[in-house]
Amino acid sequence: MSSNHHPYQLAGFEWKGKHSVIEVNGSKIGGQELCIIAGPCAVESEEQINTIASFLSKQGIKFLRGGAYKPRTSPYAFQGLKKEGLRLLKQVSEKHQLNIVTEVMDLSLLEEVYDYTDILQVGARNMKNYQLLKELGKSKKPVLLKRGMDATIEEWLLAAEYILLGGNEDVILCERGIRTFDNSTRNTLDLAAVPQIKYFSHLPIIVDPSQGTGIRQLVEPMSLAAIAAGADGLMIEIHNNPQNALSDGPQSLYPEGFADMIPKMKKF
Amino acid sequence: MSSNHHPYQLAGFEWKGKHSVIEVNGSKIGGQELCIIAGPCAVESEEQINTIASFLSKQGIKFLRGGAYKPRTSPYAFQGLKKEGLRLLKQVSEKHQLNIVTEVMDLSLLEEVYDYTDILQVGARNMKNYQLLKELGKSKKPVLLKRGMDATIEEWLLAAEYILLGGNEDVILCERGIRTFDNSTRNTLDLAAVPQIKYFSHLPIIVDPSQGTGIRQLVEPMSLAAIAAGADGLMIEIHNNPQNALSDGPQSLYPEGFADMIPKMKKF
Amino acid sequence: MSSNHHPYQLAGFEWKGKHSVIEVNGSKIGGQELCIIAGPCAVESEEQINTIASFLSKQGIKFLRGGAYKPRTSPYAFQGLKKEGLRLLKQVSEKHQLNIVTEVMDLSLLEEVYDYTDILQVGARNMKNYQLLKELGKSKKPVLLKRGMDATIEEWLLAAEYILLGGNEDVILCERGIRTFDNSTRNTLDLAAVPQIKYFSHLPIIVDPSQGTGIRQLVEPMSLAAIAAGADGLMIEIHNNPQNALSDGPQSLYPEGFADMIPKMKKF
Amino acid sequence: MSSNHHPYQLAGFEWKGKHSVIEVNGSKIGGQELCIIAGPCAVESEEQINTIASFLSKQGIKFLRGGAYKPRTSPYAFQGLKKEGLRLLKQVSEKHQLNIVTEVMDLSLLEEVYDYTDILQVGARNMKNYQLLKELGKSKKPVLLKRGMDATIEEWLLAAEYILLGGNEDVILCERGIRTFDNSTRNTLDLAAVPQIKYFSHLPIIVDPSQGTGIRQLVEPMSLAAIAAGADGLMIEIHNNPQNALSDGPQSLYPEGFADMIPKMKKF
Repeated sequence: MSSNHHPYQLAGFEWKGKHSVIEVNGSKIGGQELCIIAGPCAVESEEQINTIASFLSKQGIKFLRGGAYKPRTSPYAFQGLKKEGLRLLKQVSEKHQLNIVTEVMDLSLLEEVYDYTDILQVGARNMKNYQLLKELGKSKKPVLLKRGMDATIEEWLLAAEYILLGGNEDVILCERGIRTFDNSTRNTLDLAAVPQIKYFSHLPIIVDPSQGTGIRQLVEPMSLAAIAAGADGLMIEIHNNPQNALSDGPQSLYPEGFADMIPKMKKF
Repeated sequence: MSSNHHPYQLAGFEWKGKHSVIEVNGSKIGGQELCIIAGPCAVESEEQINTIASFLSKQGIKFLRGGAYKPRTSPYAFQGLKKEGLRLLKQVSEKHQLNIVTEVMDLSLLEEVYDYTDILQVGARNMKNYQLLKELGKSKKPVLLKRGMDATIEEWLLAAEYILLGGNEDVILCERGIRTFDNSTRNTLDLAAVPQIKYFSHLPIIVDPSQGTGIRQLVEPMSLAAIAAGADGLMIEIHNNPQNALSDGPQSLYPEGFADMIPKMKKF
Repeated sequence: MSSNHHPYQLAGFEWKGKHSVIEVNGSKIGGQELCIIAGPCAVESEEQINTIASFLSKQGIKFLRGGAYKPRTSPYAFQGLKKEGLRLLKQVSEKHQLNIVTEVMDLSLLEEVYDYTDILQVGARNMKNYQLLKELGKSKKPVLLKRGMDATIEEWLLAAEYILLGGNEDVILCERGIRTFDNSTRNTLDLAAVPQIKYFSHLPIIVDPSQGTGIRQLVEPMSLAAIAAGADGLMIEIHNNPQNALSDGPQSLYPEGFADMIPKMKKF
Repeated sequence: MSSNHHPYQLAGFEWKGKHSVIEVNGSKIGGQELCIIAGPCAVESEEQINTIASFLSKQGIKFLRGGAYKPRTSPYAFQGLKKEGLRLLKQVSEKHQLNIVTEVMDLSLLEEVYDYTDILQVGARNMKNYQLLKELGKSKKPVLLKRGMDATIEEWLLAAEYILLGGNEDVILCERGIRTFDNSTRNTLDLAAVPQIKYFSHLPIIVDPSQGTGIRQLVEPMSLAAIAAGADGLMIEIHNNPQNALSDGPQSLYPEGFADMIPKMKKF
């Protein structure tokens, strides 16, 4: 692991010479405090998202995740509430004072999503969507860039470089598992990516143990492991009723499970 | 390998009950004849693309590939001639009576690319770009859908299902290698995908041994193997001057190498 | 793909300057003729192995495969008939004039297996069993070295180097699929390994499409593809009663399927 | 993740109903205390192993690792000091009161290694060496079973089942990374294996971050992450002179690096 001969410039650690801290309406990502982004895979109804947002707010969480436009493997699967989902996210986030993190599935949706979110999420499937990355480089809002399922560390940082090169310095990386032969988990969470990113880059990195494992019981131990590895934060799926979730139920925490985890994470 | 309990409908073999043949200006893909799509990775200059197009035309080839907008891992790499590349493709294809196959990198470029191409290519990085796939479903031109580097056979056919569901029945699948631990080749060309697709689906399937191996010397043997496995065609990178190619030089055939290969392929 | 700076010497093409042909009791592996090794995954009974051997002999096949000691993932699975399996192999091979190919699972079994077989098979799980490889280097019988599920081309040729270095020059390589994320097949058959081995090494290479796919219907197309890619031979599982096979039934050909395939292979 | 329908019995959690603790000369593996096994990749000389053993002993470490017989990819690489390596291990471990962990590369070496070691290590390359596993099942000493580079969780636990079935209940599992497309690290350390093993099995599990990453700077963060994920211990490579190590230098800690890490690990 040598920091010479990088193919990246703006994403490289040397560019800044220190680790970046990204501020979103007064909350910080990077630096000393652990950032927790939580919420359902998808916004499903006003009641669902309000219940979850209310719960998270009481737990002291500052960032609400929730998909309005969902990239789904099958065209017959639930595709998200779309514009209505965005509207609901906005409504509950204002009510409960949460920052919104939601995905921009495509350049054509950027304008629409932009006004409703605080952080623009790029999903794993879009990490190599370079037209989208270039456009996000011109955007004024922070970008959460998930690692592609088939992306090397180098390809991931080069994707970040596309955004930085456009002038947007606020990129948060998110490790969410890679695709390997081992299908005992949905993806193989590559926690060694955390110290690697810290070594090569100044950008903050968070970890998504929900997508990264696909299994509820693994979310807590892998969250603690991510923090121990040096992650700046976590992105965790939680649902008020996982058994009836329209997507990703098996990997979503119950509210009680999430509440139990908070003090354990703080100990680190 | 059982054809029951497919998650796909329109892409499934049963939907048609026979293998589809797709016609492009009188040339057929699928069926008895082998379809060969050849050309450079990227359009680089009028001289380059004209030299290659002229050569291919003399070899009896009907389809010219060439990238105008190039998805590149690094923002510092050559990104294609863009609109000028499209214009050159059109010019030489009319002169040499070739059909054009070029990539639509993003929904925002669809309208522009549409008028210049005969087949709309979806690159491996975009196989899970569902907004793009949905829009291509409404298009009137055939779509060449490359397999994602991390896509299972099922995910690939479900991506095709997105296009078919929009009303566009003309989808050609292209196996181009998957990402595995073995980096002796650029990708691992999964030729077993060919008979699997033939079993599960009515859609034609071609193979790209250039991307699939990344090594010039492997293009010929893997082309012959693809035909033997039952592929409907091949997509092959060729360059008049591979050593100075702006992208993918090491995997591009020299014209002589390509010419040598033609009679061997016909023998099969 | 450059042949300079190899880590191997005796396995390298330059060492011989031509492709090796290995002779086993008058039958050749390597060179012009295609070598077909066929038989059941495991010897199960006298009737079974005799029926299959008789059938193969009538089809003009010269090599009978069959496991006596079977490496099985579960200790509760059928472990082979062991010594009795070796005895039956010997009996039917003499009766039907076939050469035997059977696996040496461990150094401790080498002496026992040695007298009963014509070719000593090293299974994929043992490709990195260097003590075994060293000892086989001192053996007088040809070794069939299967590629490990996780082995790169370089590691595979270095495993061959261990055998060659001991003085045994008769090593036959066998590509049998590698482990990747795609579980639509049992393994991903890496046919690009064939021309790579031909380029880097003088050793003959055969392909096992049965293990390499795990699916009966894929055996024929992948056999033809292997030949087209330049393979010197094939190793194919066949069973007189696949539905009741004690192991690997779903990937074993029926005798009729095998008989149908022979003329197609000869055409190549 | 459901514990029903396991293919394993003796390795399953239900068999014991609690997590096992394995005792080695008064030191425990499993249970409350963290077990640290440290030492060089290979025993190289009396001075080297004595220096390291002395250092470790002063740090309060109870287990010394060190290879005497080394499985190496190339036959031209250092293969270990063999019997002399075993003798040196014994000598320094008695002097510094350390338990020895060293690898049994093959069944033929079991008898020789047995007398010199306290824990019999099975390397990743041998995880599917079922003859060896069966014989270790009859042994009276604990077995450290490393996960194969290509092994699923299920295959790994079934390998443990082979040992347990022979009557030896003292099996310690060791996660050491799997092989994936990402070659930014030597292997991909799969920490989700830790809580999975804890869920499915009663056996203790330790983690090897040295092999698992191949990069010195990643050893500390991944050690802490392993502990947070619930690991019972760590296996760490350390060398008094990593730059001149005969094997695995780049992943070996300097003594100072190791000493710095100890208090951080204790905090967890």
